[in-house]
Amino acid sequence: MIGIDWGTSSFRAYRLGEDDAVRDSRAAARGIMAVEGGRFEEELLRQVGDWIADGETRVLMSGMIGSRQGWVEAPYAPCPAGIADLAGHVVPVPCAGADVRIVPGINCADEAGVPEVMRGEETQLIGALPASAAAGAAGTALACLPGSHSKWAQLRDGRIATFQTFMTGEVFAALRGHTILGRMMQEGPVDPDAFAQGVARAADPGDLLHHLFGVRTLGLFGSLPGTGAAGYLSGLLIGHEVAAAVRGGGAGAGAVHLIGAAALCDLYASALRTHGIQAERHGEDAAARGLAKLGRQVQW
Amino acid sequence: MIGIDWGTSSFRAYRLGEDDAVRDSRAAARGIMAVEGGRFEEELLRQVGDWIADGETRVLMSGMIGSRQGWVEAPYAPCPAGIADLAGHVVPVPCAGADVRIVPGINCADEAGVPEVMRGEETQLIGALPASAAAGAAGTALACLPGSHSKWAQLRDGRIATFQTFMTGEVFAALRGHTILGRMMQEGPVDPDAFAQGVARAADPGDLLHHLFGVRTLGLFGSLPGTGAAGYLSGLLIGHEVAAAVRGGGAGAGAVHLIGAAALCDLYASALRTHGIQAERHGEDAAARGLAKLGRQVQW
Repeated sequence: MIGIDWGTSSFRAYRLGEDDAVRDSRAAARGIMAVEGGRFEEELLRQVGDWIADGETRVLMSGMIGSRQGWVEAPYAPCPAGIADLAGHVVPVPCAGADVRIVPGINCADEAGVPEVMRGEETQLIGALPASAAAGAAGTALACLPGSHSKWAQLRDGRIATFQTFMTGEVFAALRGHTILGRMMQEGPVDPDAFAQGVARAADPGDLLHHLFGVRTLGLFGSLPGTGAAGYLSGLLIGHEVAAAVRGGGAGAGAVHLIGAAALCDLYASALRTHGIQAERHGEDAAARGLAKLGRQVQW
Repeated sequence: MIGIDWGTSSFRAYRLGEDDAVRDSRAAARGIMAVEGGRFEEELLRQVGDWIADGETRVLMSGMIGSRQGWVEAPYAPCPAGIADLAGHVVPVPCAGADVRIVPGINCADEAGVPEVMRGEETQLIGALPASAAAGAAGTALACLPGSHSKWAQLRDGRIATFQTFMTGEVFAALRGHTILGRMMQEGPVDPDAFAQGVARAADPGDLLHHLFGVRTLGLFGSLPGTGAAGYLSGLLIGHEVAAAVRGGGAGAGAVHLIGAAALCDLYASALRTHGIQAERHGEDAAARGLAKLGRQVQW
């Protein structure tokens, strides 16, 4: 089978073996926004046409390719959603020479009834679920996929019970690039001490909108060097996110599952430690594993 | 006397009479950032040289003109600071034909020791203080100057006891202009219903970084029209600010003093009402009144 994680800005394809192992993979900066005129069939065949011609005719896709701006809209499946719920609602897509299906995104609503949505992360969550949970074993866990729009999901009895989104990464970029705070920031890697200082600050009384101004005043008074300002801001935002997410509950006593790029997961693991919570890491190949697991349940 | 409120982006001059009334006023988009090469003396004489030539040789200035980027740096006066503290620390500035002084900004630190600063708002606060408070009468009050960097000050016994800053206005502009949230916003006046909806949302469980994503999902599901999205975001941010500020205390049972432009103060008054708190409005001429009050105490 071919598994494809097709998001807004990137395209990742995995050729999966009988044992669900990744036999080959390809990545391209061909997210749905980069595909002109909605020519998704053409793009798919350009990227993996040789694999299909080689006999790999089953193609399962997840991510924004199933959104209104994608190839075919795959309606959201409501939470709680597990492997069977997702595999049972894949949407077929007409494509020459291949049997192409799209995994639906999922939705839920928070306590106040405000909607929540994800597309693509549900497949990564399925991929990262421990085998016991995937098999429907009882138990709860909290998982986080950090990023522009971080997702925190409560996993219960092998299904995604509920989730919420934090706009942390995108807010960081907007504040750094387009407010007075960015002016004092020097380029460079995240300073871990400044990051920790920001995480600690997030636990102080007061609101995020107030804490942000401290990036400026600590700089003005020489307590935060230009090399540390970006790390401090990152710690402040991630600290507020992590505190709210673990307060929101669902973590229980267990570790939080972190799914994503290693450097970003390092930062989240460090913020979680300040709450006495351990992190369990999952690689970025969670999408491939999720597509493989779902592909086994799809009625091809 | 001539009073001048000289900020980052604007210049406002007031010719004050014996009775402290504003006899004449001028405004120009000649904030300190617009004055090339630090030619502040030239700029001052261009703007009000005729008043000075007319015998009005005492000039008192407040705002960013006293910052490191301004004419002469006027060191911050520490809180608590009242009329006598500020008038006693004005900094003289050499200027041909006039006796020019700059009112110091003030500083303090929040519970965690993170510094806070203001320049210019202290003079507006002095201007808005009721006569009884200005005279040093006992009592406390909470005042707010909404804006890019909103200031909330606790007034106690006729002095500014402490204050905190919220980056609300600047964060709004960055989110509207440079995140996915701005894409769904149509131009137009603030929709009061959407604003109220955002303020109510700010009181829900969950963090601001999570609430922000609701601007997108409510739009996706048709619950928030493009004409309301900007108002909702404004309500969300101002709602979080006001809730944190009134929680931070100092309001007591009294009204909150709002100092600033009428349209913005309307929004803050409406957010305060959801907390059962009344607002007392002060016009934008608070700076002129503050400069007049301070000028009477300066040792010319």
